Amino acid sequence: MTKARLMYLPLGGAGEIGMNCYVYGYGPEGAERLIVVDLGVAFPDMDSTPGVDLIFADIAWLEERKNQIEAIFITHAHEDHVGAVGHLYERLGAPIYARAFTANIARRKMTEHGYSEKSVTTVGKWPETVKKGPFEVGFVPISHSIPESSGLVIDTKGGRIIHTGDFKIDVEPGIGEPFDHDLWASLGKDGVKAMVIDSTNVFSTEEGRSESTVGPEIENFLKDAKGMVAATTFASNVSRVRTIALAAQRAGRSVCLLGRSMRRMVEAATDVGILEDFPPVISAEDVSSMPRENVLLLVTGSQGERRAASAQLARGKYMGITMKEGDTFLFSSKTIPGNEKGVIYIINQFSELGVDVVDDRSGLYHVSGHANRPDLDVMRDLVKPQTVIPMHGEHRHLREHAKIAEEAGVQSVLAVNGMMIDLSGNQPKVAEYIETGRTYLDGTVKVGQFDGVVRDRIRMALNGHVIVTLIIDEDGDPLGDPWCEVMGLPEMGRNNAPLVDVLEEDLSQFMGRAKDKTIADDTKLEKELRTLARKTAQAEIGKKPEVSVIISRLG
Amino acid sequence: MTKARLMYLPLGGAGEIGMNCYVYGYGPEGAERLIVVDLGVAFPDMDSTPGVDLIFADIAWLEERKNQIEAIFITHAHEDHVGAVGHLYERLGAPIYARAFTANIARRKMTEHGYSEKSVTTVGKWPETVKKGPFEVGFVPISHSIPESSGLVIDTKGGRIIHTGDFKIDVEPGIGEPFDHDLWASLGKDGVKAMVIDSTNVFSTEEGRSESTVGPEIENFLKDAKGMVAATTFASNVSRVRTIALAAQRAGRSVCLLGRSMRRMVEAATDVGILEDFPPVISAEDVSSMPRENVLLLVTGSQGERRAASAQLARGKYMGITMKEGDTFLFSSKTIPGNEKGVIYIINQFSELGVDVVDDRSGLYHVSGHANRPDLDVMRDLVKPQTVIPMHGEHRHLREHAKIAEEAGVQSVLAVNGMMIDLSGNQPKVAEYIETGRTYLDGTVKVGQFDGVVRDRIRMALNGHVIVTLIIDEDGDPLGDPWCEVMGLPEMGRNNAPLVDVLEEDLSQFMGRAKDKTIADDTKLEKELRTLARKTAQAEIGKKPEVSVIISRLG
Repeated sequence: MTKARLMYLPLGGAGEIGMNCYVYGYGPEGAERLIVVDLGVAFPDMDSTPGVDLIFADIAWLEERKNQIEAIFITHAHEDHVGAVGHLYERLGAPIYARAFTANIARRKMTEHGYSEKSVTTVGKWPETVKKGPFEVGFVPISHSIPESSGLVIDTKGGRIIHTGDFKIDVEPGIGEPFDHDLWASLGKDGVKAMVIDSTNVFSTEEGRSESTVGPEIENFLKDAKGMVAATTFASNVSRVRTIALAAQRAGRSVCLLGRSMRRMVEAATDVGILEDFPPVISAEDVSSMPRENVLLLVTGSQGERRAASAQLARGKYMGITMKEGDTFLFSSKTIPGNEKGVIYIINQFSELGVDVVDDRSGLYHVSGHANRPDLDVMRDLVKPQTVIPMHGEHRHLREHAKIAEEAGVQSVLAVNGMMIDLSGNQPKVAEYIETGRTYLDGTVKVGQFDGVVRDRIRMALNGHVIVTLIIDEDGDPLGDPWCEVMGLPEMGRNNAPLVDVLEEDLSQFMGRAKDKTIADDTKLEKELRTLARKTAQAEIGKKPEVSVIISRLG
Repeated sequence: MTKARLMYLPLGGAGEIGMNCYVYGYGPEGAERLIVVDLGVAFPDMDSTPGVDLIFADIAWLEERKNQIEAIFITHAHEDHVGAVGHLYERLGAPIYARAFTANIARRKMTEHGYSEKSVTTVGKWPETVKKGPFEVGFVPISHSIPESSGLVIDTKGGRIIHTGDFKIDVEPGIGEPFDHDLWASLGKDGVKAMVIDSTNVFSTEEGRSESTVGPEIENFLKDAKGMVAATTFASNVSRVRTIALAAQRAGRSVCLLGRSMRRMVEAATDVGILEDFPPVISAEDVSSMPRENVLLLVTGSQGERRAASAQLARGKYMGITMKEGDTFLFSSKTIPGNEKGVIYIINQFSELGVDVVDDRSGLYHVSGHANRPDLDVMRDLVKPQTVIPMHGEHRHLREHAKIAEEAGVQSVLAVNGMMIDLSGNQPKVAEYIETGRTYLDGTVKVGQFDGVVRDRIRMALNGHVIVTLIIDEDGDPLGDPWCEVMGLPEMGRNNAPLVDVLEEDLSQFMGRAKDKTIADDTKLEKELRTLARKTAQAEIGKKPEVSVIISRLG
């Protein structure tokens, strides 16, 4: 019998922040039993993925090994860890395990996709474990910016792996278990083969701050504020939502929750019993009847999302509520790189309304949910793994994290998506490179990253689109002249001549002198017409558009 | 005779950072003589202006008053102040004035557009002045991040206006005149009607740092660095380019300039005699024959521009030079909001090559070219204007700047693009709202912001494009079935049926039951086919594409 292999394979999250999807395997080489940790999404942007709705890791490798998959474990309920469960479940066909709050969120997603609530099993926290095939997996409470985040202890006969999930070291996290140094030390005392560990904040050199520091600052802020105040944070950061609500209560303000996810998250946390002291809330209708200085709106849209409550308030009105001169808008959040323009847009709109905005600059009203560099050192020292495997980071984060581990004398391996690491021996080694990528959810269809769909959209956006139609009659002769339509291109070109007229003129001339052989050959004719249309456009408007040539042959 | 009016009208730059274009007028109301200060560009992005090459202020208002324009004054050679001169000159037809370095850059732009070098007149610095109509304008040296930046003293019989241009307070700027407190105080001593003043850094609460603090830090950095080092900054920041080059020289490294604008800016500064101590440079070919630790590459692309030298080095090679493990890349720059993704992309590519990157986080290797809040206070106290008019900022910057002036007891007015301010009386008042906007340079054509060209591109990028063609014969009957092509859409829809087939099937069925009246009416037929195509696509792929319907009628 072949010796059993213990392996690690990131399919998403190792090379980006987001889209987490990690695979662990144990068993005979090539026939390992597998577990999946997290099934998250990434979010599209106009630059690289216009029109796309969501982005998943490409799970083709897993799907081909569907019968080897024992289970899917979700560390916490952030979209980049749980967002794809409903979309990818069918292709994996394995049961999903999570703690209560995460399971609550996951179940909502599963039922939205028509699956049974039973597809998700709620698991208690460590020392409770789940045994699946050769794996025994425990959910160890760890502090982060959403309730019931967990690191996973993954035990096999080949050794113990600790997968931290996203985490910070916070002994006063507000909601949920404080970070327990002794517990984490105890998990490592009999030896840990590898710790797969969050790298998001590896470039932050200060020790991380506790959630408990935020409340007093917000309370002081609210006491000084004159008019109505709206505050935004990620709705999933239930502890922060609670912190803000309690600060509002102490500052004599009633809380109104605005935005679907804000209400849903508070509901989910209440459902599972982890949110018990949330102050009574008022409805949007109640707001108008209250003095402005007694109101706090807790709103969605901390990242400038165009449809969120924050953006709608910035545009003038949401649920009948209007903000105005003398009011204040507070970002209790950090702008994620790439979202700056959206956030700044909102700030400027509030400025036009006369609303003061307190952004993330001061640092007083927000703390990160991820471990900073000194905290990563603490974690490594507690667990004392044989190998550190950085995850949840772009290449620069993973590289830096691997470097600081090595500098501390702990071996590390920089594994990016698709790199299968064999952890069986004393030194990790690259076993194989798996083809990976991204899958786009586009409307209701899943398209591959390299299918050309998005490439064509980007080209149309950059270059515009010319459509050339041509009819060839039964005898193989052109019936009339080629006809052009344009979309996303200037109407007039050089010398103020309509672009379409010049295109049609040039294409007609071409048809007049084209040989029968060319006209008879669709491929050739298409190519010639396309090339000419691009050349004419270049001369007329200084750019080469995308061109679709449609030849209709009669008879 | 009507009393003369002194007025200020921003057409660009008051509501955004970039695209500067300010108008001053003096004379009988409605028939004022005009001067233009700066003609800058803004840069497009994929989110709002895909495919666009450059963005200008809409100067229709000015063009209608072409014969009232006395002159165009350019404060400094940054693209957002001088970039549009070649593109808009013809529509304004007024002479351009600037100091030597700025004039050198402006002339290159003018000759590229086929204009004479004489279109730009070089002006000496204050107390030299230019008299044009009722205006007497002087260029007062002021420190910024490009050589020979100037504030303008604009004297009329209606009073003095000071237009600071972009500035910082730096008494050791490296190249060019140190900020002269006494000079600025003297300009204000007989009363200043209004100071129109840079607002970019109004949210930075610390006093600004001098350019002179950067050199020693970079020198230390270079001495510690092991392999080859590449450093990037804005090429137009000639003082910084010099600072880096001199630091390299002191650290025993030879400098190689990479990127067209890097060489051009050094050349321009040398031409006008303001850059005399630049160390000898080596060519890209020389680099390979030198020990890596004796080389410093000074490269373009501090904002992650995809075609710049930095991006090409990050992709693997530029001009035969390859960076590798042990080398370092230094950003002596700050990432402009909106450019984060491009910069991070490059950093990750360098990470993959094993190149260490020092980004803008430390703050040691870069200082801003704009006055921070305390410096704005200093300037206001020196000049003691009757009114402060914040410019060069988004709405939030202008509002904040107006607020701090008021708090200091100086009246201010928040004037955004298109708001004409009458400065004749003791209190500024809004005289008129001018319709303004943006003009896009798209290839070689100028299109208006609201012409729909860019809107259509964005729609195609988000929704994809379906083209429906249909031939109607001489008798008004459909000749064959409608034909569909798609671009930027998934090939397969629901149930794995090809989208095109389902579209064609549905449209054919529609044609089969369509009334003659509908078929005879192009507008109606187009509309029906479009609506149906969108409906079918929604059902098949979950999104509604843009649809172009092309009906060819024979005979």
